[in-house]
Amino acid sequence: MELFANINTNDLFKDRPQSKKEYIRSNLFSDVKVPFREISLTGNKQKDKPQHLFVYDSAGAYSDKDININISEGLLPIRKQWLLNRKPLQQCSTQMAYAKKGIITEEMEFVAIRESNQNLHLREENLERENRLNKNLANSPLPKKITPEFVRDEIAKGRAIIPANINHPELEPMIIGRSFYTKVNANIGNSAIQSSIEGEIEKLLWSLRWGADTVMDLSTGKNIKETREWILRNSPVPIGTVPLYQALEKVGGIVEDLNWEVFKETILEQAEQGVDYFTIHAGILLPYVSLTKNRMTGIVSRGGAIMARWMTKHHKENFLYTHFNELCEIMRYYDISFSLGDALRPGSIADANDEAQFAELKTLGELTKQAWSFDVQTMVEGPGHIPMHLIQENMDMQLKHCHEAPFYTLGPLTTDFAPGYDHITSAIGAAQIGWYGCAMLCYVTPKEHLGLPNKDDVKQGLIAYKIAAHAADLAKGHPAARAWDDALSYARFHFHWEDQFNLALDPQTAKNHHNESLPEERNLHTPYCSMCGPRFCSMRISSQIYNTNQN
Amino acid sequence: MELFANINTNDLFKDRPQSKKEYIRSNLFSDVKVPFREISLTGNKQKDKPQHLFVYDSAGAYSDKDININISEGLLPIRKQWLLNRKPLQQCSTQMAYAKKGIITEEMEFVAIRESNQNLHLREENLERENRLNKNLANSPLPKKITPEFVRDEIAKGRAIIPANINHPELEPMIIGRSFYTKVNANIGNSAIQSSIEGEIEKLLWSLRWGADTVMDLSTGKNIKETREWILRNSPVPIGTVPLYQALEKVGGIVEDLNWEVFKETILEQAEQGVDYFTIHAGILLPYVSLTKNRMTGIVSRGGAIMARWMTKHHKENFLYTHFNELCEIMRYYDISFSLGDALRPGSIADANDEAQFAELKTLGELTKQAWSFDVQTMVEGPGHIPMHLIQENMDMQLKHCHEAPFYTLGPLTTDFAPGYDHITSAIGAAQIGWYGCAMLCYVTPKEHLGLPNKDDVKQGLIAYKIAAHAADLAKGHPAARAWDDALSYARFHFHWEDQFNLALDPQTAKNHHNESLPEERNLHTPYCSMCGPRFCSMRISSQIYNTNQN
Repeated sequence: MELFANINTNDLFKDRPQSKKEYIRSNLFSDVKVPFREISLTGNKQKDKPQHLFVYDSAGAYSDKDININISEGLLPIRKQWLLNRKPLQQCSTQMAYAKKGIITEEMEFVAIRESNQNLHLREENLERENRLNKNLANSPLPKKITPEFVRDEIAKGRAIIPANINHPELEPMIIGRSFYTKVNANIGNSAIQSSIEGEIEKLLWSLRWGADTVMDLSTGKNIKETREWILRNSPVPIGTVPLYQALEKVGGIVEDLNWEVFKETILEQAEQGVDYFTIHAGILLPYVSLTKNRMTGIVSRGGAIMARWMTKHHKENFLYTHFNELCEIMRYYDISFSLGDALRPGSIADANDEAQFAELKTLGELTKQAWSFDVQTMVEGPGHIPMHLIQENMDMQLKHCHEAPFYTLGPLTTDFAPGYDHITSAIGAAQIGWYGCAMLCYVTPKEHLGLPNKDDVKQGLIAYKIAAHAADLAKGHPAARAWDDALSYARFHFHWEDQFNLALDPQTAKNHHNESLPEERNLHTPYCSMCGPRFCSMRISSQIYNTNQN
Repeated sequence: MELFANINTNDLFKDRPQSKKEYIRSNLFSDVKVPFREISLTGNKQKDKPQHLFVYDSAGAYSDKDININISEGLLPIRKQWLLNRKPLQQCSTQMAYAKKGIITEEMEFVAIRESNQNLHLREENLERENRLNKNLANSPLPKKITPEFVRDEIAKGRAIIPANINHPELEPMIIGRSFYTKVNANIGNSAIQSSIEGEIEKLLWSLRWGADTVMDLSTGKNIKETREWILRNSPVPIGTVPLYQALEKVGGIVEDLNWEVFKETILEQAEQGVDYFTIHAGILLPYVSLTKNRMTGIVSRGGAIMARWMTKHHKENFLYTHFNELCEIMRYYDISFSLGDALRPGSIADANDEAQFAELKTLGELTKQAWSFDVQTMVEGPGHIPMHLIQENMDMQLKHCHEAPFYTLGPLTTDFAPGYDHITSAIGAAQIGWYGCAMLCYVTPKEHLGLPNKDDVKQGLIAYKIAAHAADLAKGHPAARAWDDALSYARFHFHWEDQFNLALDPQTAKNHHNESLPEERNLHTPYCSMCGPRFCSMRISSQIYNTNQN
């Protein structure tokens, strides 16, 4: 097929040497096998030293060299048989419904293995060090070991979700909750200005290359439905959308012409295709709009601004709020998760934590309970622009008002003064709120506030957010997080340069930086780099000290 | 003179449109005038709207278009007359000595004006918003208004320092303390591999271009003394060094041959030239070396590794510790500040907050008191690699053991897994510790652990750290910090694109990002950008809502 002629999936991961795909098989379900990335440590010549590291891998079949992928055919529907085997529960087949009944699904088992520590061979035997690093851990609900039963319990309590539409069988299940790895979402999507199906598939693959855990398709341009179909059939990660955008396109862009019927038609269409979660701006109510009037930057959520305009034009309550039960019934049928949109998130430091924001948050909490009464999995979206000292309050209020449903924030950006670098202003806030318990971080690219991100912006945004998420996982004490840092630091101290590059989040960039200032042939066998040179390399001198002591 | 033929100081700030230098004159001292950068806000056509913003400017005469600079002649010695006028205090003329006597110096008045809010015309009249944003502020000693008397008192108590060697009259005084703007240091310096005087001057100017508050010359290559002379004569910011590096060069790189006499000769030479602060690794004692033996990454401070090797070779106590009083006497004479080096800072997440690190910190606290007894201004260096949940403990321990002397940290890096992006892994930790009260942040560039930074690395490191410092200032409630964010957000909401670019930390990058995807002629008059396009611009829709309400 001509459509995807320019996409070469084989090249996607070629800049990640010594990495290969490995699968861990389930003991519970014979057809569940969970993918990991295995990085070989070639510097360790002694057999008693670790020879590999396992890390989480969200890229699906694309990072498996043994699988040939044909975009025009889509990925293998690995969940198909699971769904067929499963006993339906009275018009409802959500993970939450099964969890409440005490049933562990294949999806729950899959994520339990996926979140577990596969690097026990690397475990530091020095328990004193472990204990030192584990003190001061945030008051988190993290267990020492993640079991399928723990996963089930977290989902039953609404503290975690597995977004997985029954019509998206190509999905590799992942879990969003504060007891698990902090996840990262990347936004893609065409616009009226730029639009091509192949371009969007490229952005999807590029997002997977850099570690996106979910992808939101925010298309507002042409061929929205067809584009989304190709994205879903080729995505191993959950796909989220903001159905309001397509609904608005359906009424020719005239906000006043929006209505429940058009919206319902839109979500049914997307539900049938397999969208895994919907951002729904049901928490912005008519009385809240006036609370934003004295703000520095008004309403900065696109969906929020649209609904506010609709309400003020019609002097009517938000139709997403008034039809919320109907929404729940549709989403329950497909097991689509809510991502309750924060229409009133602050768009500037000046507007952080204001009355409008927290009024909406309370309504989102009520809606969360309502969704749970239908067994619909639910997460809650959060800000935005927040100075560091007000971030904790956001997390505390969300946990309190939304009954511990997973929080999913955009950043937050911790200052407004650096457009062009908002991946950094926001990675600071994202790491912090991830540590406090935010379950998923929506990335921000360097183009934020300025334009549509290109490929390099997507990469820079994802890198900054994978860093923020991993820093958060270390700080909240995810039991499998620290092995990666330890492996890299070990390679660094022992001048295993190739291992250090191969273990890096972005191997090629690390290697290029190193090679830039040392002649090629001296690159990889020198116990120093150009930063300090041989005489001033602390690690080199340090090794000599210990050797001296041993003599 | 041929030496600086390729340096064009006029071009340094040409990418900063609508910015000009303004000076505020002191009422106390007729020859004290304090530089600011004034950014004109051209979007505000109404006279009652703010027409300009004042921001802190560390760049000295280089950012003043009215001053012609000749590198081979050096900068004007603005402090010369202040120092001549001043009544000497018995062999001692440190800022701390004057402060303890209740005397306000020109330097104290200078920094008091420099740290004050020059944007009261922009002050939000809505006090409710002010109060909301001020709640939850960290338990900081920040006053509502920074007066010369407050500055004097902070210096007298040792809680802040003004690094200013009497032989560096070209310096524009700046203050390092947690009640003031969080400062950023940039490292420059040649190495055995790369070395040219002109190159180092270029790095100095480039660091000033991107906002460095102090610069450390870490040269270890050729012509160290001559290079430093040119740096000092052309630097408006304090210059710090690690004298041990030059001392080691003097003994041919043989660590065992180091001794107090060579070290003393080195610091006297540097003191005479005008170096403003010295990193001194006097806190690593012989018994501490063995505490590092089971570390993942040993000793990663270069000075620390050198002293550890010297001590273990000779089985003698650190000569910087045993000669500390002599050191104090020399530094007092010139008013050079101590930057007490943390030789045992962790070099990996695994080694964070360990016994070795905190043993040294306590010794640094004792040395701080000792230095204060000589009226020598002192700050204390800190880590390093620390996961987020252990950062607060570092700040708490430092305040406690070092009696509230200013803390000056390298990062900290919050994860080890992303070499090539350590400006980001560390900006996260730097922002956090700055908020907790760290007074100065030593930048980390993308080249950290991999090689010697080039010009772009220096820029990227400084941008990330200016962001971290400003985010910290907002969170700790510096009274002058928020005006910048507010001005930018105001411009953003009102589609004053040119103002938004001109107010940006890096105007050219912001403008390029915006223009990349919108045709030039439509760039600056459209109430939207390519990110959302006209139909989905929330700010545009938002404005319409309020206009509707007003009708």
